[in-house]
Amino acid sequence: MSRNRAMNYRSAGVDLERAEADKESFKSLLGSTKDSLTLSDLGLFGGLYKVPEDVPEPVLVSSADGVGTKLKVAFRTGEHRTVGQDLVNHCVNDILVQGARPLFFLDYLATGSLEDGVVREIVAGVAKACKENGCALLGGETAQMPDFYGDGEYDLAGFIVGIVSRARILDGTRVQAGDLLIGLASSGLHTNGYSLARRILFDVGGFRVEDPFPGSEESVGSMLLRVHRSYLSALAPELDRDALAALAHITGGGLPGNLPRSLPEGLGAVIHEDSWEVPEIFRTIQDIGSVAEEEMRRVFNMGVGMVAVASPDEAPRVLSRLRDRGEEAWLLGEVTEGAGVRFV
Amino acid sequence: MSRNRAMNYRSAGVDLERAEADKESFKSLLGSTKDSLTLSDLGLFGGLYKVPEDVPEPVLVSSADGVGTKLKVAFRTGEHRTVGQDLVNHCVNDILVQGARPLFFLDYLATGSLEDGVVREIVAGVAKACKENGCALLGGETAQMPDFYGDGEYDLAGFIVGIVSRARILDGTRVQAGDLLIGLASSGLHTNGYSLARRILFDVGGFRVEDPFPGSEESVGSMLLRVHRSYLSALAPELDRDALAALAHITGGGLPGNLPRSLPEGLGAVIHEDSWEVPEIFRTIQDIGSVAEEEMRRVFNMGVGMVAVASPDEAPRVLSRLRDRGEEAWLLGEVTEGAGVRFV
Repeated sequence: MSRNRAMNYRSAGVDLERAEADKESFKSLLGSTKDSLTLSDLGLFGGLYKVPEDVPEPVLVSSADGVGTKLKVAFRTGEHRTVGQDLVNHCVNDILVQGARPLFFLDYLATGSLEDGVVREIVAGVAKACKENGCALLGGETAQMPDFYGDGEYDLAGFIVGIVSRARILDGTRVQAGDLLIGLASSGLHTNGYSLARRILFDVGGFRVEDPFPGSEESVGSMLLRVHRSYLSALAPELDRDALAALAHITGGGLPGNLPRSLPEGLGAVIHEDSWEVPEIFRTIQDIGSVAEEEMRRVFNMGVGMVAVASPDEAPRVLSRLRDRGEEAWLLGEVTEGAGVRFV
Repeated sequence: MSRNRAMNYRSAGVDLERAEADKESFKSLLGSTKDSLTLSDLGLFGGLYKVPEDVPEPVLVSSADGVGTKLKVAFRTGEHRTVGQDLVNHCVNDILVQGARPLFFLDYLATGSLEDGVVREIVAGVAKACKENGCALLGGETAQMPDFYGDGEYDLAGFIVGIVSRARILDGTRVQAGDLLIGLASSGLHTNGYSLARRILFDVGGFRVEDPFPGSEESVGSMLLRVHRSYLSALAPELDRDALAALAHITGGGLPGNLPRSLPEGLGAVIHEDSWEVPEIFRTIQDIGSVAEEEMRRVFNMGVGMVAVASPDEAPRVLSRLRDRGEEAWLLGEVTEGAGVRFV
C-alpha cells in the first residue's frame, strides 16, 4: 500500500455504515423485550432500568458467560439463530440457582467479516430468549474486529442482572445432610464440553454436521446445537413457595464440579448413577473417544442440567409438581456429611 | 489420532486444573474490590450485590463493552496489565454520562493458549481499575477456547452496573440551545480506531512497537497502550452539584457520532476547531495514512475524551472547578438549533 493512497476505516476493515444499519435493526429486537421498568431506548451510552419496588431488601444477582466453542458448530452449520438462546438461558440459570429472577441482559458480539444478516440472526436469538425469560435486552456491544476473528467467525458473550429478596437468597446455608437431590433433565450438551465433543465427533469420528447422529434421525449438527434450556419456568414456582434449599446449574465441571458450589462447607453428595439413563449422545461421544467415565462426568452434564435440593419432607412434593409441569425430573441422590461427590 | 487412544479434555486443549488455579488467584483480586454492599465471594454461580438504600427512586444503568483491537498492541508488546484498565474505565465513562456511579463490574475473558501468569495479569488490571473507580469486581467468566483464539491471543469484554436517582438521570432532556460545551482531554486513542491506527503505523509506516514514536521519546507500543482514562473523579463532584445538562463520552464515531447521543432531537452543536490542539499522535497517524480530516474525526477522539454540557451561567464555574481539579478542560463549542455537528 502506497503512502500516497488515502486510508480510511473501511480500508482497515471497519464499516461504520454497516454498524449503523445493524444498530438500526436491533431497535425493534430490543423494543420487543421492553417491560415497564425499562427506561431507555437503544442509543444512550448506558441502558436504564428501574429497580423494582416490590422486592423487600433487594439484592442484585449478576453473571457473565459465553457460548464457548459451541459457536464452532454454528459456523459449520450456518445456523446462527440458536446460540443467542444458549447464552441467555445459561445466564438465566446461573442466577436462578441463587434464587433470582432476571431483570435485564446485555450481549457482547465480536465479529470478523460476516455475511449480511448474520449479526441480526444472532441478536434475534438473544432477544427471543430474553422475551421467553421475561428479561429486557437492555443493550450490548457489537464490535467489528477485522484481522482478529476469521471470516464468518464471531464470539458471543452475555451478562445478566436479576433480583432476589435478601431473605430468599439461595447460597447453600439452608442445606442439611439428609436433604434430597432432584435431577432435572438437560436438553443435550447445553454449552459445555464442545472442545472435546467436536474433537471426537469431527476429527476422530469423521462426521460432518449434516450426517445423521448414530442411532438417530437427527443430524450431528442439529444434535450439537440443541438449545441450552432455561429452567426458569419449571423452578420459579418452587422459589415462590420457598420450597428449595439450593439449586445447582450443571455446567463445565459437571456434577462433581458444580454440585459442591451449592452446598455449605463440610457437606457432600451421593449420586445414584442408576437413577437415570445417560442420553445416547454422551455415550456415543464416550465410545468414539474412549473417554473414561470420570472424565465424562467432569466435562459433560450427562443428562442432568439442573439439580434441586430439598428437605426429605418437601422433595416428594417438589418432584410431583415438577412432573405436573411436564418436567423430566427424578430423585438423583442425597446430601451427605463430608465433602465430595460420590457416584454409587 | 487413533480411535484406541483414550481422549480427555486436556487432549482437546482445555485444562480444568489450570482453570481452577486461575480462579484461585482471582479470589484475592476480587476480594480487594469488595465493598459493604458486596454479599458474595467468588464461587457462586452469580455474584450478589445489595441495592444501595440511600438513592431515592433508584435506576440501574448498565453498559457492555470490549477493548477492541487495542488488544493486538498488547499481544505485540507482551504488556497485559493495562487492557483491563481500558475496559473498566471505558465502561465507567459510559454510565457516568447518564449520571450514574458504578456499583459493580464483571469481565469476560476468552483465551487461546496463554503463557502462565497472563490471565492473572489481565484480571489484575481489571481489578486495579475497579478499585480506582470504587466499583466491586463481582465475578466474570474465563473461557478456554482452544482452536478459536490463536496462541497468545485473547478477547476481553466487560459489563458494568451503576446507579442513579431517577431525577438525576442525564438523558439529553435538560439540554437547551445556547448551552456551552466543555471539552476534557483524552489520554490518547483510548479504545477506538485501533484497526486503522495499527494498519497505518505497523503496515504502512513499518513501525515496530519498540520504536520511538515520531517526535517523542515514548515508544510506539507505549503510546498506543496509554490507558483509556476514567472521568469519574473529575466529573462526580459536578454530578453531585447537579451542575451538568449532559455528558458525552467520545468513543467510536468521534465527536460527530457521539455528541448527538447526548442531545435532544432537533438540537446540534458547533465545535470550535481552534479551541484545542489535536495531539501529535493523531496528526502522525493522519499524515502517514493520508487520512481525510473528516474521516479522522469520525474514527478518533482527536484529543477530546469527554464533553460536558452546561448552561451559559454554569459553564464557567464548571470549567474553573475542573481546572482546579487538575483537568485539562476548555470551552469547545455550543449547542445550536438544528441537528448535526459542525466544525467551524
